[in-house]
Amino acid sequence: MASQTNGSTTQVSSPWPAGAGVSRTELDPTSFLRRSASIHPERVAVIDGERRITYAQLRERVNRLASALRRYGLERHDRVAALCPNVPALLELHHAVPAAGGVLVAINTRLGPQEIRYIVEHSGARVLFADAELIPYAAGLPTGVEVVRVGDADGADPYERLLADGDPEGVPSLLLDEEEPIAIDYTSGTTGRPKGVVYTYRGAYLNALGEVIEAELGHHPVYLWTLPMFHCNGWCFPWAVTAAGGTHVCLRRPDPEDVWRAIHELGVTHYCGSPTVQLGLVNHPDAARSERRVTALVAAAPPSPRLLSRLEALNIHVVHVYGLTETYGPHTVCTWRDGWSELPVERRAALLARQGQGYTTADAVRVVDEDMHDVPRDAATMGEVVMRGNNVMAGYFRDPETTEHAFRGGWFHSGDLAVWHPDDAIELRDRGKDLIISGGENISSIEVEQTICAHPAVNECAVVAIPDDRWGERPKAFVSLADGATATEAEIIAFCRERLAHYKCPDAVVFGPLPKTSTGKVQKFVLREPEWAGRERRIN
Amino acid sequence: MASQTNGSTTQVSSPWPAGAGVSRTELDPTSFLRRSASIHPERVAVIDGERRITYAQLRERVNRLASALRRYGLERHDRVAALCPNVPALLELHHAVPAAGGVLVAINTRLGPQEIRYIVEHSGARVLFADAELIPYAAGLPTGVEVVRVGDADGADPYERLLADGDPEGVPSLLLDEEEPIAIDYTSGTTGRPKGVVYTYRGAYLNALGEVIEAELGHHPVYLWTLPMFHCNGWCFPWAVTAAGGTHVCLRRPDPEDVWRAIHELGVTHYCGSPTVQLGLVNHPDAARSERRVTALVAAAPPSPRLLSRLEALNIHVVHVYGLTETYGPHTVCTWRDGWSELPVERRAALLARQGQGYTTADAVRVVDEDMHDVPRDAATMGEVVMRGNNVMAGYFRDPETTEHAFRGGWFHSGDLAVWHPDDAIELRDRGKDLIISGGENISSIEVEQTICAHPAVNECAVVAIPDDRWGERPKAFVSLADGATATEAEIIAFCRERLAHYKCPDAVVFGPLPKTSTGKVQKFVLREPEWAGRERRIN
Repeated sequence: MASQTNGSTTQVSSPWPAGAGVSRTELDPTSFLRRSASIHPERVAVIDGERRITYAQLRERVNRLASALRRYGLERHDRVAALCPNVPALLELHHAVPAAGGVLVAINTRLGPQEIRYIVEHSGARVLFADAELIPYAAGLPTGVEVVRVGDADGADPYERLLADGDPEGVPSLLLDEEEPIAIDYTSGTTGRPKGVVYTYRGAYLNALGEVIEAELGHHPVYLWTLPMFHCNGWCFPWAVTAAGGTHVCLRRPDPEDVWRAIHELGVTHYCGSPTVQLGLVNHPDAARSERRVTALVAAAPPSPRLLSRLEALNIHVVHVYGLTETYGPHTVCTWRDGWSELPVERRAALLARQGQGYTTADAVRVVDEDMHDVPRDAATMGEVVMRGNNVMAGYFRDPETTEHAFRGGWFHSGDLAVWHPDDAIELRDRGKDLIISGGENISSIEVEQTICAHPAVNECAVVAIPDDRWGERPKAFVSLADGATATEAEIIAFCRERLAHYKCPDAVVFGPLPKTSTGKVQKFVLREPEWAGRERRIN
Repeated sequence: MASQTNGSTTQVSSPWPAGAGVSRTELDPTSFLRRSASIHPERVAVIDGERRITYAQLRERVNRLASALRRYGLERHDRVAALCPNVPALLELHHAVPAAGGVLVAINTRLGPQEIRYIVEHSGARVLFADAELIPYAAGLPTGVEVVRVGDADGADPYERLLADGDPEGVPSLLLDEEEPIAIDYTSGTTGRPKGVVYTYRGAYLNALGEVIEAELGHHPVYLWTLPMFHCNGWCFPWAVTAAGGTHVCLRRPDPEDVWRAIHELGVTHYCGSPTVQLGLVNHPDAARSERRVTALVAAAPPSPRLLSRLEALNIHVVHVYGLTETYGPHTVCTWRDGWSELPVERRAALLARQGQGYTTADAVRVVDEDMHDVPRDAATMGEVVMRGNNVMAGYFRDPETTEHAFRGGWFHSGDLAVWHPDDAIELRDRGKDLIISGGENISSIEVEQTICAHPAVNECAVVAIPDDRWGERPKAFVSLADGATATEAEIIAFCRERLAHYKCPDAVVFGPLPKTSTGKVQKFVLREPEWAGRERRIN
C-alpha cells in the first residue's frame, strides 16, 4: 500500500484510514481486455482480412500466449521483442507480454538487420517474434536469441504452435507496482544509436484512458490500424480501443484502397495517421464521403487548409495531436474550441495547426527559454517545449546520462521549438535543429511550410536552411504538387511574399516527391545534406 | 516518487530508469478545472437560474475561495463542512477545498440539527458553509465552529465577501501523495450513527474519468444537477463534468417542471437520478420528446419496463449503475450489450435491471458466500457483493474497527445480496436486511417488486417481510399506482402468481404513496415498523 510506505498520510493514531490494500489496485492496462471480454465475449475484437477474432477468443489467445511465455522461462521484466506489421499477433503481444510479467520491445519494421540486432542486444531480449515476411531481417541476431516466426511459411505456424502450448486460463500477474516497466520503444533519431524509451504500467494505463477521452472512442469504436503498432506502442491504442470494447481492424500496410474499403465496408469510426496517410486518402480515386463521421487523429505535422477541407468534405473529423516517443505518443491535443465551426476553412486550419495543450490525463506543457523560465504568451517568442507528469517516459533504458540530460531542470526537454499563444495553446515553430537563422533573425521553417501549403496547387512541402554567404542561412522549399496541378517557382515565391515578411520567403523552390521516414515524417536531413556538402557544420 | 520509496523497481545498478519525479504527477481531480479554464475560458461552466459563470470566472472564484480558506487558517487535511443544495457555491467548494489542502464534508441537507451537529463534531470541521435557506439547521453547533452563510439574506452575502478577500491566482498545492483524503461523506444508514466515508484524490480522479467514459460525457456535456451534490460528492460529477469541459446546470431541487425546462431550453445532455426522479419526469404534463438524446444515469433501483419504454420514447437513454457511498457512488454499470436494441422492451428492461460489472476504472465485483468463495454463476445462488480497488473508500474516518470489519477478507463488504449470471453480470436480489425468509425458503423482495412493477397500472412498489405465525415471514407489497390507473389487491396478487413461485407472492397489497429518503430510496423500515410493532426482533 503506497499510502503506508510513502508515510505521508498515515501516522500513529491518525484518524485517517489507510485502505489496507482494499482501496488500491495497481493501474494495469491489461485489465481492459479482461473486462471487455467479460462484457462482450461474442463481439468481434479483431478483423484481419477475412479473419475474425471475438473478445472471448482474444482473451483466450492472450492467456495462452502469456502462460506459454512463462512456461518457456520468461521471468519478471524480461524483454520480449517483436518485429511485425499491424497483425493480430502484435496486438496480442501488447496484452500477453505484460500479463506474463515481461516487457515488450516492438521494433520498427523499416529498420535494417544491423539496427534490429542493435536493439535486440541493447534491450537484452532473448526472444523475437518476427512476422514471416520479415524473417530475413532477423538474420544475424546474437546467439541465444530465439526467433519465433509469426505466420505460416512452410505449412506450420510456430506462433500458433506456441499458443497451443499455453493455458487458456492464463497466469497470475506478477505486477507489484504500477511504475514497473511495461515496454521499451526505441527511437531512431537522426544521429547516434537508438535510445530505449521506457514506458510504465501507470503511464500506459492513463495514456490509454486519455486516448479514450480525447478521441471520444465511446462504447464500440471500430479502429483502423493505419498507425504502426510498433510506433510508441501505437500511441497506447492497443489498450485504449480494448478498454472501449472496440474492434481492431488490422492492416499490414495503410494502402489507401484498403483504408477506403475498411471505412465503407467495415464501419470504421477512428484511425490515426500522419498527413502523408491522410493525403494518400484524399487523393485516391476511391475517396468518397463516409456515411458516418470518422475521427482521424493527425500528428507529425498539422493538416493544410486544403487537406483539412477535403477531409471535412469526406466526413472525416480531424483531431490534431502532438507528442514524442518519450511521451507515449501524443501529449497535447488541439481541442476544438467554441466557434471554430463557423470560421472559414483557412482560419480554421490555422487554428487547428496549433499543438494545443496537454491531454486530460497529462500535465500542461510549458514553453521555456534557456534558463527554464516561461517565454511570454505572445505568439511570437520562441522557446523549447518541455513536459512532465504521468505521460512522460520513465527514462532511457540503460542510459542514465542521457536520461539525466533529457530531464534537466525537472522537465523532459522535447527539443522542439514553439511559441506560446495568449490562449495557452502552444504552436510548434521548429524541431530544434530545423530553425533557420538568416541575418540574425530566426525563421521558422514550419511557418514557411504552412504558408506554401496554403497554395491551392501544393500537396506537401518541406523547407530547410541552406548556407548563404551574405545572410548565413536562407530558406529553400521542396514542394510536391497536387495531382494535375501546376505552379512555377516564381508563383510560389510571390505567394509567400504576399503573406510573409520577405526575409522569411524561400530563395528557391524545387518540385518533386519528398523523402519520408517509415512513420511519414519528411526526412529533412536528406534534403539538407546535398546543400551543405563539403561543410563541417550544418548551421552557418 | 513512489517508485523510489516503494523500492520495487529501483535497485543498485538497475537498468531501469526511475523517472526522478519528471514521470509522475499525483492524480488530482482539481487539475481538471485548471485545464478546462485554460482551453475554454469563455465557455459557460455554470448555469444557476439567470446567472452564468464562465470557466475563467469559475477558476478565479475557486482560486479566491481556496486562498481565502488558507488565509483564514486552513491547514493541510483540515475539514470544511458544507450544508447546501445544488448551488454554485457547493460546486466551487468541491474544487476549492482540495485546492487549499482541506477535506470537504458535504452534509445531507435533509438531516436535522442534531444529526448535522454530530457530523460536524465527528469530522472535526471548524467551518460550515450553509445555504441561507438552511441556516436554521446549523443552529446549536459546537462552539468554535464558524458558520459562513451562502447567499444574500440581509443585503450582504458572507460567502461572496470571503471570495472578495481571496487571491484570484490561488495558492500552491499542498498535495504530496494522491492517496491523501479529499472528502468525507457521511452515510446515514438505518441504524446507528452515521459513518464518515473517506475518499482520496486518486480515487476521486479515477472515478471522475470513469464517469466521463461510462456516461460518454464527450467534449461539452450540459449536465443537469438532479442528483444531490452532497450525495457521494455527486458521484464525482463535479470533477467529471469539469474534466469534459461541460456546463453544470444547478437546481436547488429537481422539480420536474424545471428539469423539463432545462432539457428543452438549456440543451441538457446528461443527468443522474433515482427512479423517483425519473418517474416524476415521465408523469409530468411538460413531458415531451427531447430533440437531442439525453443520457440518464439511474441508480438506487432499476427502471421498470413501463418506465424504460416511456423514457426511451422521450429520447432519454438509460444507463443503469450501482454502488454505495463506500464506492464513490457507482461501481458497476450495466453496459448496453450487442443486440439489446432489437429486444422487446420487457426483455430489455429485465436485462437492464442487472447491475452489470465494474466500471472501466474499477475492479470487477464478486458475489461470495460466507467463506468468501465465489458463488456459482448460475443466476440463482445468492451471495454478498464485495468490491475492491481504486473505486473503494480508504475506510471510515476515526473508526478503525468498523473499517476492519467492512474490509474483512481483503474486500469491501457491501451488505447487498445478488446472484451472478453466466455472462458475469451481477443482479441484486436484496439489501442484506431485506431478505424475506418464508418457511425456510429465501425470497428476494427485489424480485417480487420487479414482478409487481411490470404490471401496467403500477408506478412504484416496495415489498417487505411481515411476521407470520405459520411461515415465519411473508412478503407484503406497498404499491403506488400510475396516474389515472386502477388495480385491486386481488389483481396484483394474481399477476404475481402467474409469474412467480406462489410462495414468493405477497399475501397483502396496500395502495398509496411510498415513504422516501432525500436521495429517493424507499424507506422500507417505515413500512416495516408498524407490521412488527411489539416484537423484539425484525426477523421471524
